[in-house]
Amino acid sequence: MIVLPREIAEHVGRDDVVVWDGDPATPPGSTRFYVPSYMAGEWAFEAMRLMPDLEVCQLHTAGFEHALAHLPEGVTLCNAAGVHDASTAELAVGLILARLRRIDDMARAMPSGDFIHDRYDALADKRVVVVGAGGIGQALARRLEGFECEVVLVGRTAREGVRARAELDELVREADVVVIAVPLDDSTRGLVDGAFLARMRDGSLLVNVARGAIVDTDAILAEAGRLSFALDVTDPEPLPPEHPLWRAPGVIISPHVGGNTTAFLPRIGRLVREQVERWESGSPLRNVIVS
Amino acid sequence: MIVLPREIAEHVGRDDVVVWDGDPATPPGSTRFYVPSYMAGEWAFEAMRLMPDLEVCQLHTAGFEHALAHLPEGVTLCNAAGVHDASTAELAVGLILARLRRIDDMARAMPSGDFIHDRYDALADKRVVVVGAGGIGQALARRLEGFECEVVLVGRTAREGVRARAELDELVREADVVVIAVPLDDSTRGLVDGAFLARMRDGSLLVNVARGAIVDTDAILAEAGRLSFALDVTDPEPLPPEHPLWRAPGVIISPHVGGNTTAFLPRIGRLVREQVERWESGSPLRNVIVS
Repeated sequence: MIVLPREIAEHVGRDDVVVWDGDPATPPGSTRFYVPSYMAGEWAFEAMRLMPDLEVCQLHTAGFEHALAHLPEGVTLCNAAGVHDASTAELAVGLILARLRRIDDMARAMPSGDFIHDRYDALADKRVVVVGAGGIGQALARRLEGFECEVVLVGRTAREGVRARAELDELVREADVVVIAVPLDDSTRGLVDGAFLARMRDGSLLVNVARGAIVDTDAILAEAGRLSFALDVTDPEPLPPEHPLWRAPGVIISPHVGGNTTAFLPRIGRLVREQVERWESGSPLRNVIVS
Repeated sequence: MIVLPREIAEHVGRDDVVVWDGDPATPPGSTRFYVPSYMAGEWAFEAMRLMPDLEVCQLHTAGFEHALAHLPEGVTLCNAAGVHDASTAELAVGLILARLRRIDDMARAMPSGDFIHDRYDALADKRVVVVGAGGIGQALARRLEGFECEVVLVGRTAREGVRARAELDELVREADVVVIAVPLDDSTRGLVDGAFLARMRDGSLLVNVARGAIVDTDAILAEAGRLSFALDVTDPEPLPPEHPLWRAPGVIISPHVGGNTTAFLPRIGRLVREQVERWESGSPLRNVIVS
């Protein structure tokens, strides 16, 4: 039995699936291929204990830590890497342009109608260093191609079109914009600390569309004003209303909305359909985290 | 004698030019090639009366109406069409993303720290109709290429890759985003009126980076809320602080900053250098408005 939440099932385009949104009263026990609901919370993962025939758990997120704790022995776990690339990369461009062109300041000045015309930064002619050469980093690089700016992709190791993370200290010194688009792991936790930010030029912009814990929040607060920040993710998250980061100068914060857009459903629908077809035909699944 | 304002002269890269920023006490009478100052206002144009040897007036704007009234008989007038394309097209993308992804609402919610997470529109999968297939329209289409959206360029007449303005009524009905990027002339003044907006789908977005008078302000106010608007130009302009457009729902306004960015000086510098070289060698000038 293939079990999917309703909003995804509609985009998968098969009529042989069972819709289940994590109602604890009716866990579908004969589930073999399972997509936990986006909205159901912890219970959607705990329910896997009650699915003795479960073979595949397909997430609709790139992150998978929350599922690992509940994954039964022998079940294959796949994430949704790639599904959020378009939406997240697009937000990164939106945040870069909003901050450089001061669209955030203009929006805030609108109620009083008194925004002062001035000459601001363009993205054209700037050097953008994208830390992370995976799906989001590459999706971002494709989107920046038309903007007459220079894009430097930075991966773990150097390869064609990608610089090595070992060069990052030097690359950051010459960047106008640095975008963080790496997964959170032991090598990236706290990667952007006070020393990292100190290397950045006056007036340059740091964008984080990855995970909050990659950037040290106290370091942001110390540098806000000299540097500019655009953050879709924060540490802590959600950011409490009284947190000073909400009101730090030159900082724009979006509430972790990188992936959750209208682009999500068609893309997760295509991924789940492909994965179900692979599973049925015995082909290797994509995005396998645990097998 | 070649006479340029200081900030442009620095980017032209020649040492045989005279810097003049429109100080009325010292009009350079032997001027033959002249770029009026960006900041000096009316006097910079009136000064042409005091330049009996003037051959070329090279503007740094695409608009040229303000210079025509003061242009002496026999002087060639060139505009700066193309110089603002990168910056203006870039702002159009920024405004589209800001409005679809609600970066404007997020910026306004930041001081209270209480923005509510929700699923908003992505640009991916959308159909963007760009009214105007000139420099800005094409620069915008290039920038949108990586965004997984469909771009429809609309020109005066149909040609390869460009639909005819005669089809606009139908194209607007199927658009998610309509961007106005045409010059203001008799055929475009009031082009976007109540009937035009009535054709647009609920929730779709109109962006104006051209001239305020192309879009009817009362029609915007009547449709704001059903439609979304992102306006770099308005009618009237500047918009008085008490004007209701500043506070209309779903409207973001930037204060005519499409062209005035850091991208401007390197590009006007390159254009002026090329024009001076053409003038010196007797080659045809670019962007000739009056000759």
